[in-house]
This record gives sequence, C-alpha cells and structure tokens, in this order.
Amino acid sequence: MDKTAFFTMPSGLYVVSAAADGLRAGCVINTAVQVTSVPPRISIAVNKDNVTSGVIASAKAFALTVIDQTADMLYIGNFGFRTSSDYDKFAKYETRETALGMPYVPEHAAALFSCRLIDTVDVGTHLLFIGEVEDAERLSSEASLTYDYYHKVLKGKTPPKASSYQG
Amino acid sequence: MDKTAFFTMPSGLYVVSAAADGLRAGCVINTAVQVTSVPPRISIAVNKDNVTSGVIASAKAFALTVIDQTADMLYIGNFGFRTSSDYDKFAKYETRETALGMPYVPEHAAALFSCRLIDTVDVGTHLLFIGEVEDAERLSSEASLTYDYYHKVLKGKTPPKASSYQG
Repeated sequence: MDKTAFFTMPSGLYVVSAAADGLRAGCVINTAVQVTSVPPRISIAVNKDNVTSGVIASAKAFALTVIDQTADMLYIGNFGFRTSSDYDKFAKYETRETALGMPYVPEHAAALFSCRLIDTVDVGTHLLFIGEVEDAERLSSEASLTYDYYHKVLKGKTPPKASSYQG
Repeated sequence: MDKTAFFTMPSGLYVVSAAADGLRAGCVINTAVQVTSVPPRISIAVNKDNVTSGVIASAKAFALTVIDQTADMLYIGNFGFRTSSDYDKFAKYETRETALGMPYVPEHAAALFSCRLIDTVDVGTHLLFIGEVEDAERLSSEASLTYDYYHKVLKGKTPPKASSYQG
C-alpha cells in the first residue's frame, strides 16, 4: 500500500467545539463533509481519545468553523496541539455561542455551522458524528485554509490522533 | 440559514465504482474522507437513488479514484451526469479491476483506493459507506481536482442527487 495516496485527497481544516458539564472543548479536524442537502447534514470524524469527543457526546451538539487562510500557527496550535482536559482553548479568543449553546471562535473562520447530533458511528480509533445543521453563517470572505496549503505553505504537521496521521 | 456557508468547505472530486451481479456502476462524489489511519478507513456518502449505492451494497466493496486536474467535462459528465442503469460508464475508457474485483478507470486519476465495505450508515437521502482500505496506489503526479476548481475553472454544475446540491 502506498500511503502517500492519501495525500491526494483534498480537504479543509476545521475547529469542532462543544460544551457540557461546565467543560468547553474543541479540536482541529480535517474530516468534515456535507453528507446530505435536504435536510443539510454534516459528518465529522473525531478521535475517541480527544476530550472533544466526549463533550460532543454529552452535549448532543457541536459547532463547526471552517478555518480560513488568515489563520496562523498560534491559532492552529491552540486548538490542534493542546488538550482541552487541562487548558481552556477559548480563553485567548473572543468566543461566541451557537443557539444550541456551543462555543466557537469567529476569528480566522470563513463559516460556522451549528449542528445537533443525530447519530454516532464507531469507525475504530475515531467516532463519526452525524450532525443536522440547524444554522449556517458566513463569518468572513477569506479563502478557506486547505489541508494542502497548511502542509505546503504553513509547513504544518499532522498530530498522532488525526485521521490522516501517517507516523 | 445562509446555505452559501457550505461553499466554504473544501473537497475533492472522486469516482466511486463497484460491480455485482453482472452490473458495473460508478458515479462522481465529493464526499470521500479518510476517517482513520490505523487501519486506514475511508467514508463516502452516496445518494440512495444512485445505482452505484445498490451495487456497492451487493459487492461489499468499492473502488475510489481521486479525480485529477487533467479531467475534462466529458469525463466528469460520463461518470457524474449519466445513470449506470442503462449505460456502461466504463465502455469508453480503459478499465482495470482492484484485487476485490471492482472496476476503475485509471485515466484522469491521481490515486486509487481499493476498499472493502465494513459498515453502512443511513444518513437520510444518502448512505455513508465505511470502507477499509485494502490497497492504495498513486496513479499520476497531477494535482487533484478540487471542487472549488471544478466550479470556478471548469464551470461545472452540481447535480440534484449530490450531497452538496442547493437547488
């Protein structure tokens, strides 16, 4: 198997976030996809070991922002390379809430999706959360940050818990 | 809800194909994502009304190719705007088979994934097929065709059965 084949699959980068039981959690993923149009539904894959997975399951909702090209490595590092278990990832940024009470950061985001969790699927190391989009909003007119741009221009790395980690 | 928010989600374009009971079927999707790394698994969303959905379910396997930027509208139209019910989409192209017996067209493809179906999830108008990647191969060194490029450069349209159709 030539694992470099996976590099050819284009994707964006997203922050998925949720709050439950007094804990705000979020992480960076590249696995969001619109799976249906009527009604609009989005699936995301999140590692079971990520704190965010448990919080989404408890909250039965999540916020999803599409990271745009204004994002710097500090922002991506804040959400992508720390753990929500002992660190509040929202402390450094202006934070808003969706109508479902999920926190999100509007900075460096091209769009926001407010999703209600309707199904959870175990796919191994990760959970697939299926969300019904209850609201969607454009937050900037900046181009989305693609995973390709993240690797090639920002020289970003892929952490071990990512769906696309290659060791 | 501002449905243009969905336009900010980057994705690629893919041909997913399968064969069962003497029928070869395939269609274009933009919904493939690597959901886990160990073992490597890919999820795809395919409309229930697409012939390809039924054939994947019968075959318990699928081939997935990543469309590259050499693809023209004839190629995309062949796989994306016809139906496999009364038309052999593979007749005009050199067609190969994966080790699992699934047909695929190597032309205009950056990479191939040979997947064994391990789970199927009903997400409404579409089915999510979870495939375990049994083999992966680079087919060209061309850049992948992004959905953004398809819309903006090729002036491509989105058919009604697509996950991202907006009416």
